[in-house]
Amino acid sequence: MPTPKHTITLLISCPDQPGIVAAISQFIFEHQGNIVQSAQHTTNQQDCTFFMRISFDENGFALTPGELRDAFLPIAERFHIKWSVHYSRERKRVGILVSKLDHCLTDLLWRWKSGELAMDIPFIISNHSTLEPLAQMYNIPYYHFPSRREQRTADQQSMLEFIYGKADFLILARYMQILEPFFVHAFPQQILNIHHSFLPAFIGANPYQRAFERGVKLIGATAHYVTDSLDEGPIIAQDVIHCNHRDTTEDLVRKGRDVERRVLAEAVRLHTEDRVLIYENKTIVFQ
Amino acid sequence: MPTPKHTITLLISCPDQPGIVAAISQFIFEHQGNIVQSAQHTTNQQDCTFFMRISFDENGFALTPGELRDAFLPIAERFHIKWSVHYSRERKRVGILVSKLDHCLTDLLWRWKSGELAMDIPFIISNHSTLEPLAQMYNIPYYHFPSRREQRTADQQSMLEFIYGKADFLILARYMQILEPFFVHAFPQQILNIHHSFLPAFIGANPYQRAFERGVKLIGATAHYVTDSLDEGPIIAQDVIHCNHRDTTEDLVRKGRDVERRVLAEAVRLHTEDRVLIYENKTIVFQ
Amino acid sequence: MPTPKHTITLLISCPDQPGIVAAISQFIFEHQGNIVQSAQHTTNQQDCTFFMRISFDENGFALTPGELRDAFLPIAERFHIKWSVHYSRERKRVGILVSKLDHCLTDLLWRWKSGELAMDIPFIISNHSTLEPLAQMYNIPYYHFPSRREQRTADQQSMLEFIYGKADFLILARYMQILEPFFVHAFPQQILNIHHSFLPAFIGANPYQRAFERGVKLIGATAHYVTDSLDEGPIIAQDVIHCNHRDTTEDLVRKGRDVERRVLAEAVRLHTEDRVLIYENKTIVFQ
Amino acid sequence: MPTPKHTITLLISCPDQPGIVAAISQFIFEHQGNIVQSAQHTTNQQDCTFFMRISFDENGFALTPGELRDAFLPIAERFHIKWSVHYSRERKRVGILVSKLDHCLTDLLWRWKSGELAMDIPFIISNHSTLEPLAQMYNIPYYHFPSRREQRTADQQSMLEFIYGKADFLILARYMQILEPFFVHAFPQQILNIHHSFLPAFIGANPYQRAFERGVKLIGATAHYVTDSLDEGPIIAQDVIHCNHRDTTEDLVRKGRDVERRVLAEAVRLHTEDRVLIYENKTIVFQ
Repeated sequence: MPTPKHTITLLISCPDQPGIVAAISQFIFEHQGNIVQSAQHTTNQQDCTFFMRISFDENGFALTPGELRDAFLPIAERFHIKWSVHYSRERKRVGILVSKLDHCLTDLLWRWKSGELAMDIPFIISNHSTLEPLAQMYNIPYYHFPSRREQRTADQQSMLEFIYGKADFLILARYMQILEPFFVHAFPQQILNIHHSFLPAFIGANPYQRAFERGVKLIGATAHYVTDSLDEGPIIAQDVIHCNHRDTTEDLVRKGRDVERRVLAEAVRLHTEDRVLIYENKTIVFQ
Repeated sequence: MPTPKHTITLLISCPDQPGIVAAISQFIFEHQGNIVQSAQHTTNQQDCTFFMRISFDENGFALTPGELRDAFLPIAERFHIKWSVHYSRERKRVGILVSKLDHCLTDLLWRWKSGELAMDIPFIISNHSTLEPLAQMYNIPYYHFPSRREQRTADQQSMLEFIYGKADFLILARYMQILEPFFVHAFPQQILNIHHSFLPAFIGANPYQRAFERGVKLIGATAHYVTDSLDEGPIIAQDVIHCNHRDTTEDLVRKGRDVERRVLAEAVRLHTEDRVLIYENKTIVFQ
Repeated sequence: MPTPKHTITLLISCPDQPGIVAAISQFIFEHQGNIVQSAQHTTNQQDCTFFMRISFDENGFALTPGELRDAFLPIAERFHIKWSVHYSRERKRVGILVSKLDHCLTDLLWRWKSGELAMDIPFIISNHSTLEPLAQMYNIPYYHFPSRREQRTADQQSMLEFIYGKADFLILARYMQILEPFFVHAFPQQILNIHHSFLPAFIGANPYQRAFERGVKLIGATAHYVTDSLDEGPIIAQDVIHCNHRDTTEDLVRKGRDVERRVLAEAVRLHTEDRVLIYENKTIVFQ
Repeated sequence: MPTPKHTITLLISCPDQPGIVAAISQFIFEHQGNIVQSAQHTTNQQDCTFFMRISFDENGFALTPGELRDAFLPIAERFHIKWSVHYSRERKRVGILVSKLDHCLTDLLWRWKSGELAMDIPFIISNHSTLEPLAQMYNIPYYHFPSRREQRTADQQSMLEFIYGKADFLILARYMQILEPFFVHAFPQQILNIHHSFLPAFIGANPYQRAFERGVKLIGATAHYVTDSLDEGPIIAQDVIHCNHRDTTEDLVRKGRDVERRVLAEAVRLHTEDRVLIYENKTIVFQ
């Protein structure tokens, strides 16, 4: 399903000024790169910050990764560019954290196996053993890290030590524990969470129960990066589904599962394909 | 567009128990009524309250309005029914309140003229004179009631005196004033408002600006009944539209207009056709 | 997830006339049934045929299945009613037919295990062995019935003999063989198929390829009952997803999987819960 | 609502090869242009044709329109580019053709007046006089060109003579006449039509009636460019809305109006902002 050709992707942000696109596209052309996708955005409403995602064929490109970095440095300095480079050939290593609910994990694993998500999954971690059989079906190592209220920090410390160096980013696929700040800081803008409401509505616990009580006519899900502020990190993707007076809280949970898994999968795909840039607690998503 | 046949609609709520549907449908049958639509709901998750909307042909029905009320009384007492009866022949009189924005009013008037909304519009009231030409296009009397901060209560008192007896319900079609409790109480569950966010997100002022700042990926609109608590009345209809990082606050306003007018029109249609029952700050909507 | 209470559901169709609802609801009440859901429809645009779905608690109802049939007979005769009765306690037995694609089967099995679909799955049949491991994960017997072009009729005859008496209805979950008329007639209005386009667009083979060539801006899926006319049976559910010029045929296939599995699951749920009536190649779906 | 800054937009197509983006962005930079939007696409699945839309500030750009054309010529020749240049300052002149139905025209005019559509409307033409009052409300000249079956060609000839030189493109806002090939050829890829179905379903007349008869569960609308083949021109935008067994043909017409006007307005906006390129009967739409 993924395009067979390998690409190199540059993610770029800098103060806007004329000449950036010319300089970067000239740089790629000079070293025999053929641009396959390019998108840009300037934050006109606020200050003028320029963002760009530009992908070119790795095949035929003249520079090694090290040479690319050296050769791009003068351009980066000239325009004060913050940048990162990503090779599609190097699949991201993704750790998944779950608790007991299986719908998001089931969906992620099926999509991954179907080739929709170009990533490797070195491990699944859970504070329960419930979903171990599901991990086994897909031959993914499953680790049980209990989460004990009285030693929460120590437990997360052990988990972090285990993870460190093994994953490029983490997915909280309905992981029902709040991560400590030290843990979040260890993976800045690299932890994706799915919240089961259309944030900022129903921040916090039990959103479906509160949606039922409020009598809303739609429920939703929000995929976002985890920050220190609960459910307030940059939003990557959101969607909703209609509901009505016949829906009990249980029905909302059932309907919501469909939205949750779809929204989380979309966010994971976007992040995996280096399509998300973050700017002041908001995301720029280059589809 | 509306069905040419006139119908009588009963809206009913009472504690659930066997025999209610049988008694009501038998009552209708006995007096030569042919049921054309019927829907029911029981609030299983909470207490067991029964709700019903049942419509039957007026043509052929044997009882006059007064006779119907007398004949139905024993059934209502037996099952402790709260009920109301509505004749589609008697079009509701609807007063519309607006400020300066024209999209909701334009849409309502066009739908009304197209026959989508079976109601009469005796007047449009505004705290500005901006939309008077629009009212004139449709030959609807337009009254300018200024809203002065220093004499808000007196101003709303005059407005209420004017309205009283002229309208069965009111639509706030982006009317940008908060109604005083005495005004709201004069039209209990009879004032429809459109809020320009997917409530309960962004309660209060400037929802599009706040949506922009939060970086949400969808914006929406909510039609609800007005109560004393700002933006917390029973929700009738909601919908959303997707947005992205390219949308400025102005773009959100533009996109939002499409959702606002669609959601408000849907709520007005539902209310006009007696399809909405209210129960504990929530609505039961019989489509 | 399903409501724990068992219900009895009557599906009814007959020429419209006054008194039907009264007679049926009185019948249920007389035998101590409490109605939990009721919906009706009359085909006003064409002839006036009346349709009804009415569910009542089995608990407390005074009649056995045999007694119910005997007692209802006079009403059925009086109104010329075609009817069927369904006990939620008796879960339907559903045979699933697949070929090589796994997305619909994966989704159905996950929903079934999650309690969303109140049915039993006695067998999965395929003309390939590809999906046997998936069936094994869920402990469902998997049978390989090859489909050979030169002896198509004989092959389908064996398959039918195997199925007969084991299933109440069949799901074609991307089963890529056309069933012979004799097979279809053996399960009238009891074979559900998912077609990967928004019918009647792209009837027949390769809808995604043809959608790509036509340059449509949305693709979809249609769940319908199988009849002798290919892709022309009564439609149960449909949905679409947006696409654009960047989508290759492969992308359409990937996006379409999400719609296909959602639409098929919805149709299966509706059919399993006895919410679908058929009238002249169209469905009446009581949500 | 429209961005206050004026921009110059280049639309480009050519065989794909490395260096195109570099050459064009360098060209813009050399003449003091600041790129504000840029998007590209390569038709990988078929031959490799490259498409680009690139917008830059007119303010500060050093070349006059004539100078731009001269200076760009060498680049165009080097890469075999087909190109066009568009100045947002020069608003497109749009002629609207209607018959009797008012929903699309009402919506277009309201959006136009609200500033959503950056175009001028020199005239509205109709084969009926029905909608003249609507045109007058907005002070737009309205011309009645009758369409007589026996002299269809002559009638369209007069209409074309009238239009010629007055409009840059035409909108058929539910204009119920089929345009003759000579008329279509006079405005190649410059006539937008709204068809009231999700094409290619229900090509031709009476799509709502046929949708009713088929029993589809969604209805839709398609905006496309007019070509010689009825309803088969390149599709610009499509959307659908759900429907069900309760909807009569009249209900489908009513529901469909909402989709038609939304889809047509979207297509007009895209065309007006030079966001649509055509390639082999398909569109590339740069949002």
